[in-house]
Amino acid sequence: MPTTAYSSADTADARPGEDAGGPDPLGLSAARRRSAEIEDQLATDPGRFRVLTGDRPTGRLHLGHYFGTLRNRVRLQDSGVELMVVIADYQVLTDRDVADRLTENVEELVLDYLAVGVDPERATIFAHSAVPALNQLLLPFLSLVSVPELNRNPTVKDEIAHSRRSSVSGLMYVYPVHQAADILFCKANLVPVGQDQLPHLEVTRTVARRFNARYGRAAGVLLPEPDALLSDAPLLLGTDGGKMSKSRGNAIALAASADETARLIRGAKTDALRHITYDPVARPEVANLVLLAALCLGRDPRQVADEVGDGGAAALKRLVTEAVNEHLAPLRARRSAYAADRGHLRAILREGNARAEAIAETTLGEVRAATRTDY
Amino acid sequence: MPTTAYSSADTADARPGEDAGGPDPLGLSAARRRSAEIEDQLATDPGRFRVLTGDRPTGRLHLGHYFGTLRNRVRLQDSGVELMVVIADYQVLTDRDVADRLTENVEELVLDYLAVGVDPERATIFAHSAVPALNQLLLPFLSLVSVPELNRNPTVKDEIAHSRRSSVSGLMYVYPVHQAADILFCKANLVPVGQDQLPHLEVTRTVARRFNARYGRAAGVLLPEPDALLSDAPLLLGTDGGKMSKSRGNAIALAASADETARLIRGAKTDALRHITYDPVARPEVANLVLLAALCLGRDPRQVADEVGDGGAAALKRLVTEAVNEHLAPLRARRSAYAADRGHLRAILREGNARAEAIAETTLGEVRAATRTDY
Repeated sequence: MPTTAYSSADTADARPGEDAGGPDPLGLSAARRRSAEIEDQLATDPGRFRVLTGDRPTGRLHLGHYFGTLRNRVRLQDSGVELMVVIADYQVLTDRDVADRLTENVEELVLDYLAVGVDPERATIFAHSAVPALNQLLLPFLSLVSVPELNRNPTVKDEIAHSRRSSVSGLMYVYPVHQAADILFCKANLVPVGQDQLPHLEVTRTVARRFNARYGRAAGVLLPEPDALLSDAPLLLGTDGGKMSKSRGNAIALAASADETARLIRGAKTDALRHITYDPVARPEVANLVLLAALCLGRDPRQVADEVGDGGAAALKRLVTEAVNEHLAPLRARRSAYAADRGHLRAILREGNARAEAIAETTLGEVRAATRTDY
Repeated sequence: MPTTAYSSADTADARPGEDAGGPDPLGLSAARRRSAEIEDQLATDPGRFRVLTGDRPTGRLHLGHYFGTLRNRVRLQDSGVELMVVIADYQVLTDRDVADRLTENVEELVLDYLAVGVDPERATIFAHSAVPALNQLLLPFLSLVSVPELNRNPTVKDEIAHSRRSSVSGLMYVYPVHQAADILFCKANLVPVGQDQLPHLEVTRTVARRFNARYGRAAGVLLPEPDALLSDAPLLLGTDGGKMSKSRGNAIALAASADETARLIRGAKTDALRHITYDPVARPEVANLVLLAALCLGRDPRQVADEVGDGGAAALKRLVTEAVNEHLAPLRARRSAYAADRGHLRAILREGNARAEAIAETTLGEVRAATRTDY
């Protein structure tokens, strides 16, 4: 699975270590400065932002997704930003295990969105496959990008180098341009990303720039170049100390019951030292539990560790279980309520799809006029 | 410009010499046998065939297109086959000179179709850019094709090797799969092609086969694998003896006036021998004029040459001019009539677009159900 601007429900967005040392080929510090400026603007004038985010529907979302990206999306929405959330269903078609349960996966994903507080009255949740006018934009946009540029994309390069499959699909290959269509169809001007996704967003910016230069003419700027909003998401490990992943059974799903949650945390890996401290480098597993409690409690992890102190792993785990279950209780209640009415759930998705298609048709109409294909 | 299953209005479909010697890697003899079988079926049961053909709208069509492909399409239509004609407008976006006159080029192309006898009551003329549901099919189809397979496509390889441009666009790269969408969206089961286009059609057949194997399940065959109808199109040269091409000023456009036609033929290259013979190898320019007259008169070129005999180039040119102008007179009259009412012309295209979109939406609905993306 490639890392994408859409998190996969099996891969947290943030990745450790990629920032360590070396030059700054992505202009990371500039991107950080720009993100800080935007955060200031968000505080004073949120109405000028439309945000595009999304996920590949690979399964239920977990705490890694929640603290990595979902919480931030809801923060943006609640601050007054317009939120567009794409379910990148086409991008999982090549993963047979996932694709064979696609309908279910998509519904679970929508439930997770609603659970964390995405408000379908204000935000638009939609699936790629339901928005033909968006997908059509892939074609004129592909005409603006060369094959060498597609080859240069780090994620595609990485995937080609490391994929266990002998080959990469054409769909994955054009994925950065498909993403450009996702962002530009709704003229989103802000995209929350992890730093490893900056190159993807750069493809979108390039497409917008070239489109405007080539076809802008009288109209001027047709497609705004979106900004990245870099998030400093905490990196949560799985309960076994490894990367959090549903398939490893080390992730606490948002949809898990309080008992399942307690069981997972009870079995979490710790270490032989009784005194609890917050030391992510020397004691990653213990620090991870401390961090999880701190995130749920909205407190500083060092303070949390101090308070547990000599209570040891058992006391820490009790605290974490309580904090997680308490924090997730209202989300889980909301999830259950929505899950009880599948008809309503599907109506929410259909409504989002229709809203997205209406926006896409407007943009496609503008693109047609600009490219003189409006016969 | 790549050679494609869509002729470009600046490139005749057929290419000489590619059949000469060597092995038969494309299964050319098998394809020929299959085409002969299909011709038999066409004679007895034309109603079971839907044909997809088309062109890139690069300018006015000329006699090379007419005798190369257009005449054959009208023959198929008039025999009772359903004809779908795609105007591949997105595939010319990268050619700036062409794209800047796209609206005009498309209208001229529709006029040429109507002129040669494509009947908008029976045939469907439509433009890529106007059929979002067709274009959306590119995405699931791309998931069925690997990057190594896209690289293997001979036309893309050729283009990458010989392009004067330093790079190939992403749109050209995915072109064979876009063509699969053109053919499969309307479940066309027959595609008239030159032999150099067989590999393209093989991509479509592969996509259909994989789609059915992967998603057919209860539904069985969802997308029929189309057959190639190999045409033995005569290769017409330009009036200068070179490849016929609008940009070289050596092509007789269908839309040219009788006077323009006469002038072009008067200036045509011949040779120093007075006695006219039909010898394409030794006397290509003279043979080309003889062939042109023979095609227009529906006669054998050797007989035509014999009749001109010692009349020499002047008599030959008079004969050719008369034959061409007489043959084209009803086409040109029809063209003028349609050209006089641009509103009607645009309505024909809009009607074709709407018909194509309705067909595409039905197929997309089936594809959505099969891929479980029908939320």
